[in-house]
Amino acid sequence: MGEFVHERHRPPVALPDACELVIACPPLRSNVNLSRIVRVASSCGVRRMIACGHATVDRKIARDGADQVAIERHRSLAPVLTRLRAAGFQLVGLEQTNRSRCVYQFPFRPRTVLVVGHERAGLEPAVLERLDEVVEIPVFGLPYSYNVATATAMVLYEYCRQFAAPPRPGGTARS
Amino acid sequence: MGEFVHERHRPPVALPDACELVIACPPLRSNVNLSRIVRVASSCGVRRMIACGHATVDRKIARDGADQVAIERHRSLAPVLTRLRAAGFQLVGLEQTNRSRCVYQFPFRPRTVLVVGHERAGLEPAVLERLDEVVEIPVFGLPYSYNVATATAMVLYEYCRQFAAPPRPGGTARS
Repeated sequence: MGEFVHERHRPPVALPDACELVIACPPLRSNVNLSRIVRVASSCGVRRMIACGHATVDRKIARDGADQVAIERHRSLAPVLTRLRAAGFQLVGLEQTNRSRCVYQFPFRPRTVLVVGHERAGLEPAVLERLDEVVEIPVFGLPYSYNVATATAMVLYEYCRQFAAPPRPGGTARS
Repeated sequence: MGEFVHERHRPPVALPDACELVIACPPLRSNVNLSRIVRVASSCGVRRMIACGHATVDRKIARDGADQVAIERHRSLAPVLTRLRAAGFQLVGLEQTNRSRCVYQFPFRPRTVLVVGHERAGLEPAVLERLDEVVEIPVFGLPYSYNVATATAMVLYEYCRQFAAPPRPGGTARS
């Protein structure tokens, strides 16, 4: 065992070309949450998001994500979700529901729209009824829910984990 | 397929009794990051954290975590890490280094100290040299690093994923 030597800000790993994850956000209470989602999405290779209303992205939080992620703004989510589904995306909500599947065992499709909910109200009925699947992240203690940006980061982690190339032995996944 | 019906703030899932994850933080730049870590740690079943200096936890961010997680304050991390190692914990750093292992393939031990780094400087040399292992999370786009609280959430997700009981068919993991 030698010393551990920093190698910070390494170039990124590639996901397969077929991977196309879109994140769809309703009007959120907090632009901080939206901006945090933009940052982590960009680091996870996401290039397209749907936002609603007059949501503004704080570049101090989103960092390079503010330039890397194309954000399409809509008045509401339901119509654009219908179009994305027709274009071949699977619509996956992130919510605790009676039929949510545990994200640990959920096999993501490469072309997925991850639909997140409002901080307090969660996914609205007009959105829920359009979804193909809903996933949830198990909770192990109080509070019994994750912050929306934190939960989104966890699902992004899982999506990338499923599609990233196997790592070189003893090292980091990279292609 | 019936409708998806909200079941928000469900009671938590249990991890095996042997699981004991401690999060160790150096003096961080931002109490917001520390507070976010406290919240997500609590939701992931963590009951003990090490913090340094005069770090204060913002209860509006940490929520129930402020009461659920016991935070031990120390002047610096190195001595307490040495004691935790002697007590049987594996010390795992979170950092991009020359010998970091990809967290996707890293088999966590139930008794682990996850050591996170400063937002800008990362893990300091006196900490790095005490670690048993270092893990890193692959990055797929700019910015080439994750926010410290986001990265901690992803590793907490992975730790819980490895130890959580298998879910009931078609439902959420719970014991």
